[in-house]
Amino acid sequence: MNYPNGIQKEYHNLTSYGNRGMSLEEDLNITNEYYREKNIAVIYKKPTPITIYKVDYPSRKDAVIKEARFKIPSTTDYNGIYKGKYIDFEAKETKQKTSFPLSNIHKHQLEHLKKIEEHGGVGFLIVRFNYYGETYLLDNKALFHFLENENRKSIPYSYFQEYGKKIPIGLRPRLDYLKLIEVIL
Amino acid sequence: MNYPNGIQKEYHNLTSYGNRGMSLEEDLNITNEYYREKNIAVIYKKPTPITIYKVDYPSRKDAVIKEARFKIPSTTDYNGIYKGKYIDFEAKETKQKTSFPLSNIHKHQLEHLKKIEEHGGVGFLIVRFNYYGETYLLDNKALFHFLENENRKSIPYSYFQEYGKKIPIGLRPRLDYLKLIEVIL
Repeated sequence: MNYPNGIQKEYHNLTSYGNRGMSLEEDLNITNEYYREKNIAVIYKKPTPITIYKVDYPSRKDAVIKEARFKIPSTTDYNGIYKGKYIDFEAKETKQKTSFPLSNIHKHQLEHLKKIEEHGGVGFLIVRFNYYGETYLLDNKALFHFLENENRKSIPYSYFQEYGKKIPIGLRPRLDYLKLIEVIL
Repeated sequence: MNYPNGIQKEYHNLTSYGNRGMSLEEDLNITNEYYREKNIAVIYKKPTPITIYKVDYPSRKDAVIKEARFKIPSTTDYNGIYKGKYIDFEAKETKQKTSFPLSNIHKHQLEHLKKIEEHGGVGFLIVRFNYYGETYLLDNKALFHFLENENRKSIPYSYFQEYGKKIPIGLRPRLDYLKLIEVIL
């Protein structure tokens, strides 16, 4: 379960919270698929950034990467377009009960979200607290209000409850986060 | 020189055309870096999509991918935000003199560009004709006008000359394609 982000499909045992045991990444992937199918929005997860060192290349179709390493991402994982607006966010799960450790997000990624704000895009964080089976959307405004006023290394769970928006879990769409964006737009 | 897209830095000998021998991808990367430094726009090339089959994982920092394969991309390579607008494009080089073969772009990528148009984003194609040392921006309107009215498997060079916009090559920024977007906005 310690694989780098985006590599491993993590199946958590969250059935007791009404969750069918999918990871946040999987939930977001099927939600984004739904948005694309219904032509609501075009949002994708970016591929995991890697540096390739060695490729076996018998033919174009059969190329096999034999050595590569993970790179630290300079941007967030998700972006796209919704109602003409540029959408950009990072999504993370935590097992912590009382707070979301900021060490889960790279400094570059927070700086990236700040830039998105400056350029008129819609940026936010999606954080799932696995213990509670709850997923929150924290928009850039609330995120940077916290970062610029607090010196803490984690965002308290209570801050998400107060300033975030809880994303309802459904069947289709699975995690209708764009519905919560309407309020920001 | 037959590596899959995005893997290999291709150095073409284009000095006779006033080009310092960088690939289109490198030119776009340093241009996008410039845009970000000057806070003009936030546009990135997406990582090459791969499927990972085997990872050696002594520790998080030292993870080495031992087997992976290239995936067919479902989106374009570049996206981001400029003046509040969602920007999305694909960039390709060709050695052909008379036309740009459409086989260079996946069907999914063209469908993706079409969707971007529908959702109010700014989509386009950047094509470099290596023989002439010329790089053109063909906006979605001109691109789909061609695709929907012609049954050809390639877009003639003359079509780029007539309906595309030639991107001037400079020092900083190297390829100022956003300047040509102003007209579309």
